[in-house]
Amino acid sequence: MSNLYPGIIRKYRQYLPVAEASIVTLHEGNTPLFESVRLAKHYKLPIKLYFKLEGLNPTGSFKDRGMTYAVSKAHEARSQAVICASTGNTSAAAAAYAARMGMKAIVVVPQGKIALGKLSQAQIHGAQVFQVKGNFDQALEVVKELAENPKVTLVNSINPHRLMGQESAAFEIVESLGDAPDFHFIPVGNAGNITAYWRGFNRLHQEGKCKSLPKMCGFQAAGAAPIVLGHPVKNPDTVASAIRIGNPANWQSALDVARDSDGFIAAVDDEEILSAYRAVAQLDGYFCEPASAASIAGVLKMAKQGFFQKGQIVTCTLTGHGLKDPDIAIQQSPPPVVIEPKGAALLEHLKL
Amino acid sequence: MSNLYPGIIRKYRQYLPVAEASIVTLHEGNTPLFESVRLAKHYKLPIKLYFKLEGLNPTGSFKDRGMTYAVSKAHEARSQAVICASTGNTSAAAAAYAARMGMKAIVVVPQGKIALGKLSQAQIHGAQVFQVKGNFDQALEVVKELAENPKVTLVNSINPHRLMGQESAAFEIVESLGDAPDFHFIPVGNAGNITAYWRGFNRLHQEGKCKSLPKMCGFQAAGAAPIVLGHPVKNPDTVASAIRIGNPANWQSALDVARDSDGFIAAVDDEEILSAYRAVAQLDGYFCEPASAASIAGVLKMAKQGFFQKGQIVTCTLTGHGLKDPDIAIQQSPPPVVIEPKGAALLEHLKL
Repeated sequence: MSNLYPGIIRKYRQYLPVAEASIVTLHEGNTPLFESVRLAKHYKLPIKLYFKLEGLNPTGSFKDRGMTYAVSKAHEARSQAVICASTGNTSAAAAAYAARMGMKAIVVVPQGKIALGKLSQAQIHGAQVFQVKGNFDQALEVVKELAENPKVTLVNSINPHRLMGQESAAFEIVESLGDAPDFHFIPVGNAGNITAYWRGFNRLHQEGKCKSLPKMCGFQAAGAAPIVLGHPVKNPDTVASAIRIGNPANWQSALDVARDSDGFIAAVDDEEILSAYRAVAQLDGYFCEPASAASIAGVLKMAKQGFFQKGQIVTCTLTGHGLKDPDIAIQQSPPPVVIEPKGAALLEHLKL
Repeated sequence: MSNLYPGIIRKYRQYLPVAEASIVTLHEGNTPLFESVRLAKHYKLPIKLYFKLEGLNPTGSFKDRGMTYAVSKAHEARSQAVICASTGNTSAAAAAYAARMGMKAIVVVPQGKIALGKLSQAQIHGAQVFQVKGNFDQALEVVKELAENPKVTLVNSINPHRLMGQESAAFEIVESLGDAPDFHFIPVGNAGNITAYWRGFNRLHQEGKCKSLPKMCGFQAAGAAPIVLGHPVKNPDTVASAIRIGNPANWQSALDVARDSDGFIAAVDDEEILSAYRAVAQLDGYFCEPASAASIAGVLKMAKQGFFQKGQIVTCTLTGHGLKDPDIAIQQSPPPVVIEPKGAALLEHLKL
């Protein structure tokens, strides 16, 4: 069995210590770094642009990287259940890893506000799913009240093991490129992931495994941009449900990352997000969830302002798979044409 | 850029010849081989059971392996468009690869009979989507009428390049295990994939890269089991939409594979399929589409009959990701509980 890819805890053993018997993995990580070809050309980008396809993790988002470690550590600490609030991706990952470990998962999501695919994931993995009459920020308050119970482990990104696991995406980018990129663009919701990437790049830099550090460029959705605005947003509103967060847990940390890396946190509006979402699917053939496209929208916005120099290397985290949210894709596309089951009926509609 | 995983054409260059300028890849392949832990234990299976997680390909199914090569060869042949009939996974892959190459995709699906996620994929990648008033078999007849046009390449599995690409999954299994498994279990719809795996295992066997060959065990859904019944099924009916096919294109080939490998083609009913579908999600933490679970249902059925010997190595192809078909997962799960945004409201429902 020597050649089985072992998942990120066993791959990055020195950074992710945990008892061997507690390791739970779905073979997360090892996701492709994917070069933009037609999108980069279409928008005349002067850069080399790469997408980290985090939607190809087992539950379809980057959350698996942190959840493998958080659930393993919860098991090691003899916890019986994991609990989280979620816009959908965290709950899918928590439910899946808990199932694999034989632990209970309790997930709390905002009612009517998470994507269909994500809800289906928490349910099919056997989590106890609660919908609060409120938004994500309220759901997070609810679960925090329970986190004092020693039988339960909170696996939101305020759990430090989550971010430790998520550093692995930065490790993989450096392995793929042979160095750090010039810029890393990333969507910002609860602001945990930008923090984790920065720590990951720094760790390798300190160990001499990359020569440089990237400027970290985080993008919030304009309707849910508390960090950009400088104050919490009571009713965050954006099509990008995964980053529809008004009071991020890692707020200060995101500001620190922006300052320390000589980067920034900015916003893109829903129109820019959806335009980038369609562009990457139609030009580069990759279907990401709307929140993921915030990072691409950010690249396109900065490119318009002449921000990049020729030949610079830019990586973008595409956080989750488009299949997480099929309804948005259908809304954003022309409807199918209905035809009779005859070749002639099809030919009528085609210009060949 | 030396460490970027290059996708299957460049990885298996000797088996998949095509002009370099025509290669189109979404970095498909390199999917995890995943050991069943809790499912195998729960059902007291005497075997080592592995799942090949083909849902972690870029468009969420194994179809990407064949499509990378079929679209590359279509481009090499100066085709302007690709066309296919599909139960959903083929059209998603065709649309994505055509988008990345800048070619047109024309996809024909049975109206109202494909999973939501799959429809959303063809649409967002910019394919021209046609819904025929009929089933898959009728959709295939429609596209065959157009395949004579030299500007258009048919990319259904009757296109030989599709199956050549799909052989790569067998290569990866042998690489992961260090040899072929004792048995390979696989869902059977159009019967192309079982054919491709068998060819792939044989190729490596002839080259001395594996010592043995697996017995190939294919499973149809009972309501769409023409090969098992020995005659086409006019109105195939099963929850497993990806294998809802009444007149498979590779029918004879599937029978040959079963005979030559000392395996068989059998059927599992929808109840067995859905039970396996829930079990792998709830016990092993992996969410596959219903059709994928036909292979697991087959393993469980054969195990009940005492088919396996202790310690045998069994691999199962899980063809597509569960996110392809979120509606089925939601139907198969208890509904979420709606609560007020207060910790006390949550506590009421939990036994901690």
